[in-house]
Amino acid sequence: MIHIAVLGYGTVGSGVVEVINTNHSSINKKAGEEINIKYVLDLRDFEGDPIQEKIVHDFNIILNDPEVKIVVEVMGGLEPAYTYTKQCLLAGKSVCTSNKELVAKHGAELLELAKERNINYLFEASCGGGIPIIRPLNSSLTADEIDEIAGILNGTTNYMLTKMATEGREYDDVLKEAQEKGYAERNPAADVEGYDACRKIAILSSLAFGRQVDFEDIYTEGITNITAADFKYAREMGKAIKLLGFSKKAGESFYAMVAPVLVDPTDPLYSVNGVFNAIFVHGNVLGDAMFYGRGAGKLPTASAVVSDVIDEAKHLHRSIMAFWSSHKLELTDISNSQRSFFVRAAGSLEEERARVEEIFGSVHFIRIPELEGEFGFTTGIMTEAEYAVRAERLGSVISRIRIRSI
Amino acid sequence: MIHIAVLGYGTVGSGVVEVINTNHSSINKKAGEEINIKYVLDLRDFEGDPIQEKIVHDFNIILNDPEVKIVVEVMGGLEPAYTYTKQCLLAGKSVCTSNKELVAKHGAELLELAKERNINYLFEASCGGGIPIIRPLNSSLTADEIDEIAGILNGTTNYMLTKMATEGREYDDVLKEAQEKGYAERNPAADVEGYDACRKIAILSSLAFGRQVDFEDIYTEGITNITAADFKYAREMGKAIKLLGFSKKAGESFYAMVAPVLVDPTDPLYSVNGVFNAIFVHGNVLGDAMFYGRGAGKLPTASAVVSDVIDEAKHLHRSIMAFWSSHKLELTDISNSQRSFFVRAAGSLEEERARVEEIFGSVHFIRIPELEGEFGFTTGIMTEAEYAVRAERLGSVISRIRIRSI
Repeated sequence: MIHIAVLGYGTVGSGVVEVINTNHSSINKKAGEEINIKYVLDLRDFEGDPIQEKIVHDFNIILNDPEVKIVVEVMGGLEPAYTYTKQCLLAGKSVCTSNKELVAKHGAELLELAKERNINYLFEASCGGGIPIIRPLNSSLTADEIDEIAGILNGTTNYMLTKMATEGREYDDVLKEAQEKGYAERNPAADVEGYDACRKIAILSSLAFGRQVDFEDIYTEGITNITAADFKYAREMGKAIKLLGFSKKAGESFYAMVAPVLVDPTDPLYSVNGVFNAIFVHGNVLGDAMFYGRGAGKLPTASAVVSDVIDEAKHLHRSIMAFWSSHKLELTDISNSQRSFFVRAAGSLEEERARVEEIFGSVHFIRIPELEGEFGFTTGIMTEAEYAVRAERLGSVISRIRIRSI
Repeated sequence: MIHIAVLGYGTVGSGVVEVINTNHSSINKKAGEEINIKYVLDLRDFEGDPIQEKIVHDFNIILNDPEVKIVVEVMGGLEPAYTYTKQCLLAGKSVCTSNKELVAKHGAELLELAKERNINYLFEASCGGGIPIIRPLNSSLTADEIDEIAGILNGTTNYMLTKMATEGREYDDVLKEAQEKGYAERNPAADVEGYDACRKIAILSSLAFGRQVDFEDIYTEGITNITAADFKYAREMGKAIKLLGFSKKAGESFYAMVAPVLVDPTDPLYSVNGVFNAIFVHGNVLGDAMFYGRGAGKLPTASAVVSDVIDEAKHLHRSIMAFWSSHKLELTDISNSQRSFFVRAAGSLEEERARVEEIFGSVHFIRIPELEGEFGFTTGIMTEAEYAVRAERLGSVISRIRIRSI
């Protein structure tokens, strides 16, 4: 029997308990031993709930119990999760987590601690919820050198963008609905400003490229400026607008970014709708691959956490995770990265056509009859810096959205 | 240094050599040791090609060399691949393969042989080419009980169906083009009759359900009867026609099938086009997940094979694959499985409407003006047996295509 402890009995923590109870026999068979939840750490009591007999309020009970071999950290946030995780690893206990903030900030250090002790720090649930992506990157796509990752990594914003696309509604309106349905927090900044996606693409990039990518270095733009009018143009162009976290190897340098992006129907990310997430990976020999599933939610996330518990139970004294070097990967400024842009400009297309073409060269114009006093166009491929200079010269840009090239 | 041998220098075999050469340093880093190709078994010689110095014509040189720890079987077909694989495993050499015929037929036995010796028999490339699916099923989706798998498992037929859908062309015409482009064999039966997809869904089902699913037991229907007219109806209904291999747990029993199926735009399989493959998996706690990528091709397939080589190099004396029991999983007859159907019937809709509704209950009619003397309708959900009885009673059925329910 392998004893485990769960830190935090919130949504994910209670999901972990539920998954272990529900699929008890198949989980034990796959782990090779019975998994027993010995403790659940929470500040609260749950009188009348069978979990109460496992509840402890003092982390040291778990830390000091040599029977506990695996600790599930599903508290979220940096502290006390960081301190607890470190103490567990130093005490020789494997840890698994859904905590993206912690993995993004201290992943390199915690992985190294685990490796030194031949134990494991696993975090399948930190990116893409239930979607298997960390383990495939670690142990399936090993023959490849990964040169691009692009993901729809936040279910809340994808739900909102899907609503805006299909129902023609405005941002504020769908945000309010998402909040009422419990998909978005009362303070939605982590989702809508792209901070959540930023941490996830930092983790995926660190793992794929083998060196620490600091999330603070990633250019991040949320969806707060996307409007119903943008979707009118998108529909006319036959494209979807998705909030993507992406990173790319360009020559010998790497860049990473979070931003709303126009994607084409031939792109596998195009039809990822609602609360679903998907992660696109390009390998130098594999070509394109994509992993799709539920990026959030109690049970899908718990499914990923429990798969880590099983892997740690099977490898109690063997480190299975490739660690990434804490030596930082310097990202290049995105101003050198190249793409085409969709631009909305004020004025009359008839009067402005020549000037736009003079500044941007050959473009494709789009006009939406009901949007008076403006027009849209898509540019050829240019660097972000070149775009900025030309947009400045044009002077009448209302907004621009990047276009994904595949 | 770990010495390996490659059996067969055909498309996949030469791809394996190319991938190992191309990504040499990252592969060695991930394997933890240098991977050296010591022998390549082939009947032919390759004078002038650097591979020639590794070519051997006698399998026993490989079998009897104790330095060779890993053997890559990429010969295809049952014999001599089966005999060679068995001999290698008995000699304590791990084997990895892309050979779906062999895995479908003898997988249970070969896995058990490997397990007894603490070595490995891996076959990531046998299903879905470069798509990581075997390893995720084995080590990622472990917290779940899988109750459904559905895959676009054959790139040739998906290419053909995509062409028929987008260009309105007839089956014979796109088959000829696929043959000219080298996507389809001169004898295309393995692809177009669904035999290839059948073996792949047998392997995936055996692994997901833990017991041997015999491919001979799987109801298999190919795409040879799909016509341009079917696609006219599909377009009118807003659906796509895909050749799916699928298996499902229904109550305590399981069924499996290969057939062309109408899929809805909300289905993640809907937008998997061209030579791409995708495998949809439903877990009881995870919900929906999908794995997408290149299902065939030299380098994507070789990428999957080499990921197995790396895993075997990392686990020279440790069996990492869940084996499935050779105890056969009895599939229930598909006549009890339930779904709705799209039916094309001869005659005039005006004259037949009442009789169709009398026999099938509430249906949805579809008429394509240019298709005279026939009409289409979609039924409610019923068993295959019920459908057969009613179709018999109607008497005027031209064809029927199953509709996937999600």
